[in-house]
Amino acid sequence: MKIWDKGIAVDKKIEQFTVGQDRELDLYLAQFDVQASRAQATMLTQAGLISQEENEQLQQGLEELAAQITEGRFTIEKEFEDVHSKIEFYLTEKFGDAGKKIHTARSRNDQVLTAIQLFLKDYTERVAGKTLELVNVLLHKADAHQADLMPGYTHFQAAMPSSFGLWFSAYAEHLLLDLALFEAAHTVADQNPLGSGAGFGSSFPIDRQLTTRQMGFGNVAVSSVGAQMLRGKTEKTVAFAVAGMAATLAKMAYDLVLYNGQDMAFVELPKEFTTGSSIMPHKKNPDVFELIRARCNALQALPNTITLTISNLPSGYHRDFQILKELLFEPLTQFLDILDIVLFALPQLKIKPDLLNQAKYDATFTVENINQLIQSGTPFRTAYKQVGLAVEDGSYVPHKEFQTTHLGSIHNLGLEEIRRKVEQLKGSSKLF
Amino acid sequence: MKIWDKGIAVDKKIEQFTVGQDRELDLYLAQFDVQASRAQATMLTQAGLISQEENEQLQQGLEELAAQITEGRFTIEKEFEDVHSKIEFYLTEKFGDAGKKIHTARSRNDQVLTAIQLFLKDYTERVAGKTLELVNVLLHKADAHQADLMPGYTHFQAAMPSSFGLWFSAYAEHLLLDLALFEAAHTVADQNPLGSGAGFGSSFPIDRQLTTRQMGFGNVAVSSVGAQMLRGKTEKTVAFAVAGMAATLAKMAYDLVLYNGQDMAFVELPKEFTTGSSIMPHKKNPDVFELIRARCNALQALPNTITLTISNLPSGYHRDFQILKELLFEPLTQFLDILDIVLFALPQLKIKPDLLNQAKYDATFTVENINQLIQSGTPFRTAYKQVGLAVEDGSYVPHKEFQTTHLGSIHNLGLEEIRRKVEQLKGSSKLF
Amino acid sequence: MKIWDKGIAVDKKIEQFTVGQDRELDLYLAQFDVQASRAQATMLTQAGLISQEENEQLQQGLEELAAQITEGRFTIEKEFEDVHSKIEFYLTEKFGDAGKKIHTARSRNDQVLTAIQLFLKDYTERVAGKTLELVNVLLHKADAHQADLMPGYTHFQAAMPSSFGLWFSAYAEHLLLDLALFEAAHTVADQNPLGSGAGFGSSFPIDRQLTTRQMGFGNVAVSSVGAQMLRGKTEKTVAFAVAGMAATLAKMAYDLVLYNGQDMAFVELPKEFTTGSSIMPHKKNPDVFELIRARCNALQALPNTITLTISNLPSGYHRDFQILKELLFEPLTQFLDILDIVLFALPQLKIKPDLLNQAKYDATFTVENINQLIQSGTPFRTAYKQVGLAVEDGSYVPHKEFQTTHLGSIHNLGLEEIRRKVEQLKGSSKLF
Amino acid sequence: MKIWDKGIAVDKKIEQFTVGQDRELDLYLAQFDVQASRAQATMLTQAGLISQEENEQLQQGLEELAAQITEGRFTIEKEFEDVHSKIEFYLTEKFGDAGKKIHTARSRNDQVLTAIQLFLKDYTERVAGKTLELVNVLLHKADAHQADLMPGYTHFQAAMPSSFGLWFSAYAEHLLLDLALFEAAHTVADQNPLGSGAGFGSSFPIDRQLTTRQMGFGNVAVSSVGAQMLRGKTEKTVAFAVAGMAATLAKMAYDLVLYNGQDMAFVELPKEFTTGSSIMPHKKNPDVFELIRARCNALQALPNTITLTISNLPSGYHRDFQILKELLFEPLTQFLDILDIVLFALPQLKIKPDLLNQAKYDATFTVENINQLIQSGTPFRTAYKQVGLAVEDGSYVPHKEFQTTHLGSIHNLGLEEIRRKVEQLKGSSKLF
Repeated sequence: MKIWDKGIAVDKKIEQFTVGQDRELDLYLAQFDVQASRAQATMLTQAGLISQEENEQLQQGLEELAAQITEGRFTIEKEFEDVHSKIEFYLTEKFGDAGKKIHTARSRNDQVLTAIQLFLKDYTERVAGKTLELVNVLLHKADAHQADLMPGYTHFQAAMPSSFGLWFSAYAEHLLLDLALFEAAHTVADQNPLGSGAGFGSSFPIDRQLTTRQMGFGNVAVSSVGAQMLRGKTEKTVAFAVAGMAATLAKMAYDLVLYNGQDMAFVELPKEFTTGSSIMPHKKNPDVFELIRARCNALQALPNTITLTISNLPSGYHRDFQILKELLFEPLTQFLDILDIVLFALPQLKIKPDLLNQAKYDATFTVENINQLIQSGTPFRTAYKQVGLAVEDGSYVPHKEFQTTHLGSIHNLGLEEIRRKVEQLKGSSKLF
Repeated sequence: MKIWDKGIAVDKKIEQFTVGQDRELDLYLAQFDVQASRAQATMLTQAGLISQEENEQLQQGLEELAAQITEGRFTIEKEFEDVHSKIEFYLTEKFGDAGKKIHTARSRNDQVLTAIQLFLKDYTERVAGKTLELVNVLLHKADAHQADLMPGYTHFQAAMPSSFGLWFSAYAEHLLLDLALFEAAHTVADQNPLGSGAGFGSSFPIDRQLTTRQMGFGNVAVSSVGAQMLRGKTEKTVAFAVAGMAATLAKMAYDLVLYNGQDMAFVELPKEFTTGSSIMPHKKNPDVFELIRARCNALQALPNTITLTISNLPSGYHRDFQILKELLFEPLTQFLDILDIVLFALPQLKIKPDLLNQAKYDATFTVENINQLIQSGTPFRTAYKQVGLAVEDGSYVPHKEFQTTHLGSIHNLGLEEIRRKVEQLKGSSKLF
Repeated sequence: MKIWDKGIAVDKKIEQFTVGQDRELDLYLAQFDVQASRAQATMLTQAGLISQEENEQLQQGLEELAAQITEGRFTIEKEFEDVHSKIEFYLTEKFGDAGKKIHTARSRNDQVLTAIQLFLKDYTERVAGKTLELVNVLLHKADAHQADLMPGYTHFQAAMPSSFGLWFSAYAEHLLLDLALFEAAHTVADQNPLGSGAGFGSSFPIDRQLTTRQMGFGNVAVSSVGAQMLRGKTEKTVAFAVAGMAATLAKMAYDLVLYNGQDMAFVELPKEFTTGSSIMPHKKNPDVFELIRARCNALQALPNTITLTISNLPSGYHRDFQILKELLFEPLTQFLDILDIVLFALPQLKIKPDLLNQAKYDATFTVENINQLIQSGTPFRTAYKQVGLAVEDGSYVPHKEFQTTHLGSIHNLGLEEIRRKVEQLKGSSKLF
Repeated sequence: MKIWDKGIAVDKKIEQFTVGQDRELDLYLAQFDVQASRAQATMLTQAGLISQEENEQLQQGLEELAAQITEGRFTIEKEFEDVHSKIEFYLTEKFGDAGKKIHTARSRNDQVLTAIQLFLKDYTERVAGKTLELVNVLLHKADAHQADLMPGYTHFQAAMPSSFGLWFSAYAEHLLLDLALFEAAHTVADQNPLGSGAGFGSSFPIDRQLTTRQMGFGNVAVSSVGAQMLRGKTEKTVAFAVAGMAATLAKMAYDLVLYNGQDMAFVELPKEFTTGSSIMPHKKNPDVFELIRARCNALQALPNTITLTISNLPSGYHRDFQILKELLFEPLTQFLDILDIVLFALPQLKIKPDLLNQAKYDATFTVENINQLIQSGTPFRTAYKQVGLAVEDGSYVPHKEFQTTHLGSIHNLGLEEIRRKVEQLKGSSKLF
């Protein structure tokens, strides 16, 4: 038997094929569907479409569901095709007519979309929070390792003296910069589509600005046609943001994997982050960082997968959008896990001291030798040639004393300037 | 509570992160690991590394495991990190030393790789089998709908008369052509890496050509370094093949979704393949074909996801390769499901008759009008202008009688020629 | 002779291969290298590394070059490998020592990077300007076509009444939203890397905050290691932004190509935007919009191409980054051309009136029929069934009068609300 | 002045936008259009659609054009929109009516497609030829460097002894394997679409099997609808093939760039393949290999770019397909250049001797130490622990003598077996 020959009838396959993993994936959306339904009920009451009493029932039922979700007791049983049916069933079972009326002036299209918007907006804020923690850890490490020099590479060749202070603070600054894409994703997710129906509005006298305020959205997605066009766009923008930051983390992981080998041997990884080999007793493989790198690289493919799935579809809803949930939600969770793991690993990272004492890195000081010659009056071209020849004939002696002063250099990391950037972002960004 | 805040400790997260979904994914590999282990045991016996009696024990144990797998009784319990540990444990538990010796002259690297090679080779053959079934269905439909004309489109504009005979046979030929990439994938999967160890061979006197014959591989992946470089390459080549055929199926699905709308209204989809709307009683949405399209488009992103995950890794094993299992295996299964669903749907597809009687398609006959004028002596340029003006001023009367004779035209579909291609492929390809 | 067999010697090929199209591509960077060099000279003067007189010479020479560039007289001759050599040569030729000193405390790495940052920052501002023009055109069209109803589609099926007012304003809102990614790209481009040298700083007493102010950068890219890591990141972020907006324009183009066919026939394209067929006199092919769609789709692939080129490179400069210029600059220009063409085409677009009078769209009013029945007391379920049956048996009469009131619906487009969003963005964004 | 503000009028822009780079790109197709036109003329004669005399004129004119192309004298002047117009103009200018008749029973669609099929089929054969040359060079180097040991890496960690013999032969085998995708591309390109017209055939009594034989195609693309569907598919399949082999070359380049750094220092690159630094006199940067890597990585993005451009287009011609020429042709040429450069570089590559004498690689012999202990009776687990502890406490002495015997191991590279694979492929493949 092959694993895929389960003797499943085709009809059953079709059902599985269309429902997909909706039930599990919709757990991500549950709290947000409840939040949107509460806003919807409030608005329907003010519009006179349901009574005050019905609203109270609905709010009570939705609060119960919210509690179930928070406490992990909420489930979507097999008889429901998605979270939305489950919630409506719960309300109708409990309150009869009031439950049925919650769907007034709403279609499944804008309902699903609203929950996704809320979910993704919340997601960007969660990532932003963890990112600041990580930036903080990195700045702390940069501070602690100011004096730990390492060779700086260009073209995979040892080029000039660098330091772990510069290395750690580089990643701090880049993670901070990566939040710009999360800000953009937040802006796109911060548009309220509720009330746009199936993409063409309705003739109900609803108040879309009221639901916008109730759910804490920054804007109404005004045109009903345009509101539907958010489907896919928000997902893709979040994927861009994740891909952007994943690139930074993949690069950091690559550095660490490389620095962990016998040839460079710059760092020692925390024990939990390495594995041995069943046949080679000397191996300390950096598996966790390899997997961080691999997963971050796979995450970089996410925007393209989404783009391919939804491109060349004219305006209006297509069922194709549904599979974005299965393409996106699991990877988004994985990315949060990666952030947690990096947060856990970095403080334990050990740096090997005195790396630049090794003869193979002597030539990284050629620039300093030249500078010294210049200061004693030798013209640059002459100094360059002289040092170059010394390297060639083996007579070269590295000039290891040097002092840098400019912002962002070995002896002036500018950590306060980076911390200022952090504060400025916290003050101005909607992510916090 | 957010779904991802499960209060899981980071240590646990790391374990989950490294093991990933290996246990479930390894079920795909179980039968192939058994097959490879049997070949390994036979070879070790001939090489004098295990005794005849030990071999008999191992073969018996592996046959028992094979039976468990075939009957769906095989499981990988939580205490095992993967299928390979489980199988070795089973053999060691049962036979002691013999079980331990199965791993002689083999490392986890070549063992996993061999199972993946066998699995993917088998996969290409399975797809090929289903593809021929589908080609057959399409040729049958082409035959049945020779006389059913439809407008042929270029630039999304009705251009000339076409037919469902041409349409069905087009997809038959293309699916056949798509097997060329599966043939390539089969060739890459048909290289035996067993014996290459961790990628640098070993000093054991093993016979790699014997295991190659035993497992039915066409070739030895000779260089041990090269054998390890198959990791990722075979996966990517299979992904290319799946992406290629998925493009064909996505195009077919797009056609059908479009033909199912009120504007074209060329086909009626089988009932199981449409869904209604909760608010619009007239809707018959072609959800299944939209999902086929969407999933086939997502499958077209697979080669890129794999490429991004493994590119810019120098030669030698990296843990990164492990996540290819989770990126690839589930989509591969999904693709088989899609083929099944298309196989089920197509025979039920109903074609609307007399489509070209609609006035909006009259202009598709302009080429025939021109040809008729040419035959009665009018030069082409004059005829072209005359017919063009008639279309403009509304006096145009379409010349609807026409007869084509050339191979692959409306009245000479050349289905026998396509069937000849099928037979030729069956005769020459290693996929069958 | 095949086109690639030009009998070019391999040495020559290597030179071509390494220099690539640098000379042409560097024309994009010329004005920005001049700008950065002026800031550099000013700073070197203040730091006491060059004299006041030298600075005056340099400023004069750079002004001359700026004038040449503005007037289109600037060229990079074959003897220079790039724009930077050309500019230095010009200054050295003219002023001797002063020209040579401009490169003090600067390496080719930070010099190129600074010019790219300035160029891409400027690019995002240019796109933003054109985008606002386009938003304005769309809002104007939305206003003019409020009363032009059209069928609204879901699943490629006519679903409910929609309008060109909703359609135009949808794209206006989306283009505006697409600027969020350009804002992110602007933020990344707004970091000054000058002074980071080859990525590890220098021992010169330079003032990086002064050059930052001089060039109008918002921030210093503090860590010298981090500054170098901008290479590739800024390019990719701009590519994300272009890809995001390209998706919107591709969707609009797809709509228009579809609406231009005989089956829908909703719009008439301006004559310059269609082409005929050499054999079919009735064809009016929407080639320009097909090409806009195609190019916008190819542009959506750009982030992935960049990602694949630079992923899995550890920190530090690699020559690989150089080819981003050829991957990116031409497509960026193409995108500006696309915006111009859309800006030119849209005002000329003609809408066909009374589309919903066609019988095939009658069923788009079923929701209104149901609403009417509900208002006269029929429960929803009963009304839904009744209308559904009428559609089936052919007795259905569409209820074509309806009135919508909510924001973003047919009769309340909310164009002022969208204009308010435009003003808000203009007030808060750094793009303007 | 910005480079893109050339004051070009929008009308002009539209023309540029639609014609694109067609004229230059069509030079690639010229010889193939001539070849197809000759087959077309012959067939038209046999079908009685043109006279014997007209055929003779056409054959003569086409031979003249073929000579111009071979000798590099053929040009497409500005007044022609593409190569096809130019060729028809030439024939009509020269022979009047005969020239006009060459287009009988052919549309621009099948004409362009036929030329592309012939061009891409030829391309796959050219790559295959160069690949065999490269395989040969690699096998030669493997032979020469059998005794040159190097550390073998897993997880970027020195793991076990390996050799340059294994390394070179690995790439030889992989390039050979990469031809499987070129074989697939060849199969797809080997289908003759001529006679399918605009995708719906014609009522002319043409003989498509005759043109198939005349042009040396292996098969007729039978269904006229299917023939048009080749547009894009052949391009994409060739792109898959190029991407596959590019991945192999990128990996090789990455290895060499890494091996060229001071930390590993395994190889010395030919002088033409390295560059210096303007500020660091000791640098020998491996720029050419970095650029090979970068371009090969960009080439790996090509299939995705093509896929995104053409996906979700229903059957039938769309103008979108036209831009595939500009996306594909230049990169294809670039790939041939890369093959030439690698062919030129590899023979000059110098290997550093005695690499495993360095203490940092001692632990790569642990497997041999363990094997030796096993042979003297120590059980595996005990030996593993013993050696592991010795490594930890620094008492470990590597057991450097070892002998491998199996196929594909250090002392038995199996180069004859690989050469046998080469011969087998040459005998069976249509690429040669």
